[in-house]
Amino acid sequence: MTKIYAYAIRKDEEPYVREWSNAHKDVDVKFTDQLLTPETAELAKGADGVVTYQQLDYKADTIEALDKLGIHNWSIRNVGIDNIDLKKAKELGFKLTNVPVYSPDAIAEHAAIQAARVLRQDKAMDEKLAKHDFRWAPTIGREVRDQTVGVIGTGHIGQVFMRIMEGFGAKVIAYDIFQNPILKKKGYYVDTLDELYAQSDVISLHVPDVPENIHMINDESIKKMKDDVVIVNVSRGPLVDTDAVIRGLDSGKVFGFVMDTYEGEVGIFNEDFTDKELPDKRLADLVARPNVLVTPHTAFYTTHAVRNMVINSFDNNLKLIEGETPDTPVDLNKEF
Amino acid sequence: MTKIYAYAIRKDEEPYVREWSNAHKDVDVKFTDQLLTPETAELAKGADGVVTYQQLDYKADTIEALDKLGIHNWSIRNVGIDNIDLKKAKELGFKLTNVPVYSPDAIAEHAAIQAARVLRQDKAMDEKLAKHDFRWAPTIGREVRDQTVGVIGTGHIGQVFMRIMEGFGAKVIAYDIFQNPILKKKGYYVDTLDELYAQSDVISLHVPDVPENIHMINDESIKKMKDDVVIVNVSRGPLVDTDAVIRGLDSGKVFGFVMDTYEGEVGIFNEDFTDKELPDKRLADLVARPNVLVTPHTAFYTTHAVRNMVINSFDNNLKLIEGETPDTPVDLNKEF
Repeated sequence: MTKIYAYAIRKDEEPYVREWSNAHKDVDVKFTDQLLTPETAELAKGADGVVTYQQLDYKADTIEALDKLGIHNWSIRNVGIDNIDLKKAKELGFKLTNVPVYSPDAIAEHAAIQAARVLRQDKAMDEKLAKHDFRWAPTIGREVRDQTVGVIGTGHIGQVFMRIMEGFGAKVIAYDIFQNPILKKKGYYVDTLDELYAQSDVISLHVPDVPENIHMINDESIKKMKDDVVIVNVSRGPLVDTDAVIRGLDSGKVFGFVMDTYEGEVGIFNEDFTDKELPDKRLADLVARPNVLVTPHTAFYTTHAVRNMVINSFDNNLKLIEGETPDTPVDLNKEF
Repeated sequence: MTKIYAYAIRKDEEPYVREWSNAHKDVDVKFTDQLLTPETAELAKGADGVVTYQQLDYKADTIEALDKLGIHNWSIRNVGIDNIDLKKAKELGFKLTNVPVYSPDAIAEHAAIQAARVLRQDKAMDEKLAKHDFRWAPTIGREVRDQTVGVIGTGHIGQVFMRIMEGFGAKVIAYDIFQNPILKKKGYYVDTLDELYAQSDVISLHVPDVPENIHMINDESIKKMKDDVVIVNVSRGPLVDTDAVIRGLDSGKVFGFVMDTYEGEVGIFNEDFTDKELPDKRLADLVARPNVLVTPHTAFYTTHAVRNMVINSFDNNLKLIEGETPDTPVDLNKEF
């Protein structure tokens, strides 16, 4: 009987592991909440493949431990493979898969909801309510339908974000160096970022953090924006010069800021600093502001996305085991 | 020169008073932040009409004070006229206007944003962030697109709410005793409330609080709903049996609750209980729950709505003064 062993399964993943297992009665699925290490590799003994999650560095010793057990079919549930010693994996004949897209809607919905919240001043209202101040003035909202929303980057996520904002009745404009022909035909694109900055009440980033995009939101670009602009970054932290946004917030130029990704997030996001000193004072300041919504890189974190990560990785692993071509293989000849 | 005097103008209304005044250079517009009372009526001396807001009871003495000044053109900036002694107003020959609709989108957007927030567990995440707990699990979100959204009441507000939810990609179904022919053609309607309860992951109320609708959300109707249902009431407090919802929240049947209107809101909403004892323990409990979003009847409270209230009331008042038919007169022969 085919056997798959999965590591680091969280509580919220278990229902989907069970769902996959129930749909594949001919596969023996076992799992643990422990991470894959040279020591825990032993747990997978007898398995035909393993399913893991990016969390630890998977160095030579871990990979060799799997190799010793005769396991060479390896499926990760997320996209990132930069923590795997790919050279060693290739050398030992591993086959690897990842899940490159979990749910564009998870991220686009989060961007839309958080942008709407900032417009509505709803964090300030929540804080008033928490101390039993039920007065509504002066915490007045701006309606989404009244905004011109500028979308930078019109890939999968940007397009879903555009559709949601149009559902609200907002005017949507877009900029991308690679223009989608259908969107172009519909007249969404402006020709330059400067035009987008000049026209937009809300600006949302949906581009990769390639070198030319680093700190694209900075003092100069903010100066080109409308007063009371809302800036949304659920994309990549380094796209935004955080100090420049703080200057914009302080001067009143920037109405609010949505920050799901942060240039200083490594070592902080997904960690617990309750009752501890947060080493990043700038982040503490942002979290405390009533017109800034910080989330710890959780835009992706929905039941839909987690289900896709689990189901797709197990599908991939079974295909590897059965010698078929998986949907999303990692080409070990290309990756380094 | 025609003269209009406005009472109880808040800071957030001033820009729109100025906008209207600038567009009507031939009208002398004066205003105060004071309420209209028998004493402050004197401030309007020489005016051809007054613009007010529902806040105090306007009893015979107030109305007589205006009458003595020869002022009989009266425009209120909101909808409610139940606090005006209409009999006296009629007797003294007053002409009255109100603003029956401010912005359906303000309310629909609020319902949509708050429903999405509950699905996303974002209040719980905000609370984690505030104490510097940046861990994402187990605060996982449900995507709006995965939900079946049941809309009870398909008037102006319900229809905007439906459009927003469809922008997210949700499946929308609806119930109304008065079926809109276009919506019917598109297949939105289910035949009974029971069907709507059985199919919906999110249920949003957009109906008036006529006697047959009082406590329509109760133990029995909640029992008919799906597990993990989200209930949204931005409509009228009495539609919901609050204790029944609390039982649903406690049992885990109800995933979350959005409450912008509350059957016990009079005397509390728009008041400040900071550092005071809140007389309603049930409300304090609801405000404190991570899966309940309370707002103090502020769904309507947007710049768009406030602008409409100001501009439309001044338009109405000028038409009264000039002997034209205003857009939204109050028929004093019908009202009592």
